[in-house]
Amino acid sequence: MKSKYPQRVGMIGTGSMGSGMSLLLAENGIAVHFYDPNEQNVQKLSHDAKAINLENKVVLEDNYEALCRAVKDGSDYGVFFFSTPHGSPIDKSIEAMRPHLSDGDVLIDCANENYASAERRQADLQPDGVYYIGCGVSGGYQAARAGPSFSPGGDPKGLDKILPLLEKISAKDKEGKPCVRPVGPGGSGHYVKTIHNGIEQGMLSVLAEAWSVLTHGVGLSYEELSAIFRQWNSDGLLRGCYLIKIGADILSTKNEEGEYVLDKVRDKVVQDVDETELTGNWSAEEAMAMHVPAATIVCAHMFRYASAFAAQRSGVKAAVSGGVTATSIKVESRDAFIESVRSAVSFCFISCFAEGLDLIREKDKSKSWNLNYRDILQIWSGGCIIQADGIVSLLDQMYANPKHDPEVVLENAVVAQELRNHASAVKEVVLKSVEADLCVPAISQSWEHFKYTTSTTLPTQFMEAQLDYFGKHMFDTWKDPPGLPQKGQSHYEWKPAKGKSDK
Amino acid sequence: MKSKYPQRVGMIGTGSMGSGMSLLLAENGIAVHFYDPNEQNVQKLSHDAKAINLENKVVLEDNYEALCRAVKDGSDYGVFFFSTPHGSPIDKSIEAMRPHLSDGDVLIDCANENYASAERRQADLQPDGVYYIGCGVSGGYQAARAGPSFSPGGDPKGLDKILPLLEKISAKDKEGKPCVRPVGPGGSGHYVKTIHNGIEQGMLSVLAEAWSVLTHGVGLSYEELSAIFRQWNSDGLLRGCYLIKIGADILSTKNEEGEYVLDKVRDKVVQDVDETELTGNWSAEEAMAMHVPAATIVCAHMFRYASAFAAQRSGVKAAVSGGVTATSIKVESRDAFIESVRSAVSFCFISCFAEGLDLIREKDKSKSWNLNYRDILQIWSGGCIIQADGIVSLLDQMYANPKHDPEVVLENAVVAQELRNHASAVKEVVLKSVEADLCVPAISQSWEHFKYTTSTTLPTQFMEAQLDYFGKHMFDTWKDPPGLPQKGQSHYEWKPAKGKSDK
Repeated sequence: MKSKYPQRVGMIGTGSMGSGMSLLLAENGIAVHFYDPNEQNVQKLSHDAKAINLENKVVLEDNYEALCRAVKDGSDYGVFFFSTPHGSPIDKSIEAMRPHLSDGDVLIDCANENYASAERRQADLQPDGVYYIGCGVSGGYQAARAGPSFSPGGDPKGLDKILPLLEKISAKDKEGKPCVRPVGPGGSGHYVKTIHNGIEQGMLSVLAEAWSVLTHGVGLSYEELSAIFRQWNSDGLLRGCYLIKIGADILSTKNEEGEYVLDKVRDKVVQDVDETELTGNWSAEEAMAMHVPAATIVCAHMFRYASAFAAQRSGVKAAVSGGVTATSIKVESRDAFIESVRSAVSFCFISCFAEGLDLIREKDKSKSWNLNYRDILQIWSGGCIIQADGIVSLLDQMYANPKHDPEVVLENAVVAQELRNHASAVKEVVLKSVEADLCVPAISQSWEHFKYTTSTTLPTQFMEAQLDYFGKHMFDTWKDPPGLPQKGQSHYEWKPAKGKSDK
Repeated sequence: MKSKYPQRVGMIGTGSMGSGMSLLLAENGIAVHFYDPNEQNVQKLSHDAKAINLENKVVLEDNYEALCRAVKDGSDYGVFFFSTPHGSPIDKSIEAMRPHLSDGDVLIDCANENYASAERRQADLQPDGVYYIGCGVSGGYQAARAGPSFSPGGDPKGLDKILPLLEKISAKDKEGKPCVRPVGPGGSGHYVKTIHNGIEQGMLSVLAEAWSVLTHGVGLSYEELSAIFRQWNSDGLLRGCYLIKIGADILSTKNEEGEYVLDKVRDKVVQDVDETELTGNWSAEEAMAMHVPAATIVCAHMFRYASAFAAQRSGVKAAVSGGVTATSIKVESRDAFIESVRSAVSFCFISCFAEGLDLIREKDKSKSWNLNYRDILQIWSGGCIIQADGIVSLLDQMYANPKHDPEVVLENAVVAQELRNHASAVKEVVLKSVEADLCVPAISQSWEHFKYTTSTTLPTQFMEAQLDYFGKHMFDTWKDPPGLPQKGQSHYEWKPAKGKSDK
């Protein structure tokens, strides 16, 4: 009987993610032939493989031709993983490998790549019978080594060939089920990973703002907050949240001099601006293209932009004579307020997931991908950065009900009621934080988003009248059914157009 | 001596904007030959021209060939205005006209068009010697009739040919100077108009939110608020604001039954979602592409998205058992609070301009357009929707100082200090509005944006540590200079990567 898995694979790119996956594959019995023009990466991987006696399973190849020959020799088809930066590096690798590829080979692109580039490459390789699988990999470099979460998308025949392998090496959820499912056709795998990263950006901002509120605002020590994060992570809606778990670690990590490492870190997040990582940008651009008000995610993203320009912020701060100085938060009961922050974080984390799932849903409809949302939650149930057991369980409850297929997540009563339970806490945290001049861009806009998406009497009434006044934009009246987003039927001639020839 | 102006022009598309411009041209002595496949538009324009005895100057043509012949007959070159929807309608018109165009003809595209489409058409027409000018037109249909604001961009030789005509028919500022300047090469004219519309969206939201705060929150009657808006518009920083002026009109407009027309208008703004108008989407997408945290503009835009889905909002409201109900704002002195709202609106309006100008500046640098920012302010100084005499005067003061060339507007001390003067008022309005459960997405995020762009100790410190923990993203330490947005030099091995083969 033939093995379900290929006995050997190729790995192109062996940075922190590619080297981790190489060792992971090797210790699962798969021979890894790798190619990387970066000598440092080569040295490190060879050294790490030797350290765990896997040097025979992790084999350097000198060029693409040798790589392809070694991987395909004696196999029905070759399987190649790419772990390089997005964009042209992958195009160049494919171009160089193409003469040595043949019908049935599978390329698994593990970069944080744009779904449209994935679809372009699929169309390009299709005449050769070569499968290109756009495969999101989440969990960071520790998970790449120990077992990440995979979101592969592309031709079902190509997916079939590699799924057993991905299931073997992937992270497993609490019940031991692999955190990988075939996402769908085309670029859907990369798309789901892109929005995963958008959700991640939202959650990162919410947690960073909460950190600031609880340390700068409430005055908790790092050790106190670390213990609180551990407690949040142990039960309730925030149980099993990867970001909270590592947040607790970070808060208690000291360097050799006994100083908190966190205190060394400057408040500057640059990868969106230097474009080494574009998934956050794409998520925000997709929110615009799909007309989804993903307010928490987008505001978190813009906050990161501003953070990157540290020198500019110094200049602006000087121009406003020092800017706004945060003060401490006055609370009656510290413990009660900490509970409110926990509740606010729960609210905003759910909002990030809801916004992301709404975005995926809109894209899914426009591309006719027919995605399975429980499968997507399964992919996110372990090994990945947005792992959030309590929240994913809540969302799974929603999708598990076949009678309810919400257009937007908030239409679902289970999720909506959960958010409502946290509403007064979010409001309290926003008010106290704004009062104390702390920065809460994502938390506060998450709250605004909730208010306006649940309201049927918005200030946009005045805006619509203004647009009709100068632009003849036409409006619906309150007597018209609320209806779809279609042009209204009424115009009022607030001010007729007149020129100098008119009386 | 030859006239500076063409004696006749073509007009393709005669909806509310095109018909207004046709009459405006005609009453300035220019014969307008028009073509429009829409019979209603044709009838209306012919009727309106006759009503002011200009029927001899506004001539219907049956097809593109006849139109081109009529316009070019006996002239050195033909000038054609396009006032159609963006995108394919213009491409189709150009395609149909192309056999009848020749070296030296000028096409002026007055649609709200994407700058990239403009540049594509310029490249396409360039071999024929035909100039394509991407020309923003602002001010709505009343201004199209009475004299709008123009932002034309393209080849300087083409711009030279039409500038005297545009100057003649454009709006004039307080000193009688025309509200048109050649913006720059390529698609810069359409780009400046796109961002104008982004600024407009921000201002519309801020004003709509202020309307809601003052009516629903404070309990002012429409007539009271109308008088207040008139007063705001008469002096101080909000003097000469078109949107506040028409806001005052709207608040006092009653229909024939004596009912306020505003009360009829549903809170639903659809043109971003039905894509009849994409400048708002493009502005938000450009904010992402250019990495500019245009927070007020983008949040206003997402608020509009949500407003469009009125039926969905009803469903979500039901799912959360009625949502959040706004209450009245409790204030000690009503008059003092109204002044705070005025101050908050001033702050947010300046922020919208600053965000928009930062966006234009980033694009300008990336495209090497070398724009003149005083010229842009001159274009915006009359006839357009974002006309705001007090604010434009403040910004002009900044650009007039040759010693100061800020990378971002907020680095300028004049503007920064003005914002600082309004800071406590914005904060007060945000707090009172959030307390009363009113929707203030743009105002509140404008305030968050100010706080985070003027701070050098952001919560992103914690985010950056998290990114380094799982992604080896590298960080700067506080000992490093604040510097440019470039990858940091430090990594801390918070948690080594380990697999099952490791001890």
